[in-house]
Amino acid sequence: MDVKAKLKEMSAELDAPIRSYIADEAPSNLIDACRQYPYAGGKRMRPCMVVAASRAVGGDGKKAIPLAVAIEYIHNFTLVHDDLMDGDEKRRGMDTSHVVYGMPTAILAGDALFAKAYDIIADLDIPSDILKKILKKVSVAVWDLARGQQMDINNENSDTVTMEDYIETIRLKTSVLFAAGAAGGALIGGANDAVAEKIHEYAMNLGIAFQMFDDILGIYGDPSVTGKSAGNDIRKGKSTVMVCHARENIKDAEKLDKFMSVFGKIDATDEEIEIARNILKESGSYDYAIEMAKKYTKDSIACLDCLEDSEDKEFMIALAEYSMSRDV
Amino acid sequence: MDVKAKLKEMSAELDAPIRSYIADEAPSNLIDACRQYPYAGGKRMRPCMVVAASRAVGGDGKKAIPLAVAIEYIHNFTLVHDDLMDGDEKRRGMDTSHVVYGMPTAILAGDALFAKAYDIIADLDIPSDILKKILKKVSVAVWDLARGQQMDINNENSDTVTMEDYIETIRLKTSVLFAAGAAGGALIGGANDAVAEKIHEYAMNLGIAFQMFDDILGIYGDPSVTGKSAGNDIRKGKSTVMVCHARENIKDAEKLDKFMSVFGKIDATDEEIEIARNILKESGSYDYAIEMAKKYTKDSIACLDCLEDSEDKEFMIALAEYSMSRDV
Repeated sequence: MDVKAKLKEMSAELDAPIRSYIADEAPSNLIDACRQYPYAGGKRMRPCMVVAASRAVGGDGKKAIPLAVAIEYIHNFTLVHDDLMDGDEKRRGMDTSHVVYGMPTAILAGDALFAKAYDIIADLDIPSDILKKILKKVSVAVWDLARGQQMDINNENSDTVTMEDYIETIRLKTSVLFAAGAAGGALIGGANDAVAEKIHEYAMNLGIAFQMFDDILGIYGDPSVTGKSAGNDIRKGKSTVMVCHARENIKDAEKLDKFMSVFGKIDATDEEIEIARNILKESGSYDYAIEMAKKYTKDSIACLDCLEDSEDKEFMIALAEYSMSRDV
Repeated sequence: MDVKAKLKEMSAELDAPIRSYIADEAPSNLIDACRQYPYAGGKRMRPCMVVAASRAVGGDGKKAIPLAVAIEYIHNFTLVHDDLMDGDEKRRGMDTSHVVYGMPTAILAGDALFAKAYDIIADLDIPSDILKKILKKVSVAVWDLARGQQMDINNENSDTVTMEDYIETIRLKTSVLFAAGAAGGALIGGANDAVAEKIHEYAMNLGIAFQMFDDILGIYGDPSVTGKSAGNDIRKGKSTVMVCHARENIKDAEKLDKFMSVFGKIDATDEEIEIARNILKESGSYDYAIEMAKKYTKDSIACLDCLEDSEDKEFMIALAEYSMSRDV
């Protein structure tokens, strides 16, 4: 399956729904700010996963579309706030929200998108017991997501983050929203609790693999493709899977010292970054990260054994594989 | 009725519930930031109104307590973000969230409190049709609240804000959350839609009177009581009810020019502020504002005619009167 083509096709189908919930209201600068990120496109993996999960369990997918939009709005609200917190000025070549609209409007646009997501969920045309389950899952996911983002901030420039801390952080900041969306889609599609739980686990594992691969790209990715300087995660002192592995496994004290002298050094030269990158490769930390991402991908796919074969199941499998092979 | 004593008593009863939903979790700095505002107390008018409305329509009030907590969390989430947007460093003598925890954590704490509010709403022990109505009301309220805050920002230093604009702004930024909470409390207490709509209208009018009086205090309040410099709303160029009235009604061009030369002048001296204040009094703008706040208070109370007499109805009437006579 050409997963990129399929993602593009599904994403295009979601474009009209994504654009249908934010009406022309006053004040226009807030409305424009609310629309900026969701309308800009992107891969839209999360909403596509909601719809695919709903169909893969036997639903027709249509009833899950509003939830897909709500999950995409929530994802975008966190991106708007994240860009502001990180002081990032560009996202996929586009000026970030706070750069275009200013800090107060970026904060309000994030808050408003979050509120709109719940407004959409309140209108879901589904049995009330399922609505309650979805409401709970989504709310806990966003709470956890904030915890994960805070952990991520706390971890910056810390020398004591363990592999366990790292996994917990990416589980919260990335996986939980994937999982709430996918499980919600499955429930809307008619899945029983056991199947919905398996879909949840599928998306949790996929999210971990996705974030691990993101962290690998953050150090080894091609800047012309990822759009961000490949060394910056080292300069920022971000404890990724590779850094945790290196800290726990490099026995050569001199080599570890050399790595740590560059880690978190905001003005590290490209030469220093290259040295640090080489140390991570030589020490096996890079290979370890790839193996780990593969393992989570495999665990993710195994969760789909409960589903009958279908094109949507195939897409979900391909999506898990794509999460750790994508170019951006 | 001694409304301040009653508020204090009800607020004290809500203290334990308000403290019961944010568990000790990692990371502790985010959890501390989430707790800071809700645990600090304050008047807690909104949650008290939720419980009172629920009892005033015949409920026992207990089932409405979680919604009261959720509304208070939402109110506090907006305060945390508002303080950051405004760059305010103090709130009731306490350092604001972003001062204590930094900007990123203040943003995340607001987001997390909002998510927690919905988590609590998802667990409400009420019929599902009522849950859906409350979910819808609260979500629309927060969407509108963000619009109102953006309008408020847009209005700053604008010379063209009309009275109509002003009313719409405070309706959105202040009234809608009062109204969603009060109507939600009434629905939980067993009110039919018509009564819940009246309670909603009660709180909408009360909110407008409350914000108008807040704006009067912002110019004429005793700084030793309100905790903020009484002239700052003029220095910031905030279009309050008085300013809108003055702009639309002062016929003496020289006098109006004099006022407008101080309005929005961030470094205006105390003497200049005093001159501006006197112009608002002489022109009848102050009296007009008081009359308007009285009118909304009266309209608010009239909405309660549908209720049988009770101590809670009496409290709700007193709360409406208090909204425009409180010292802070």
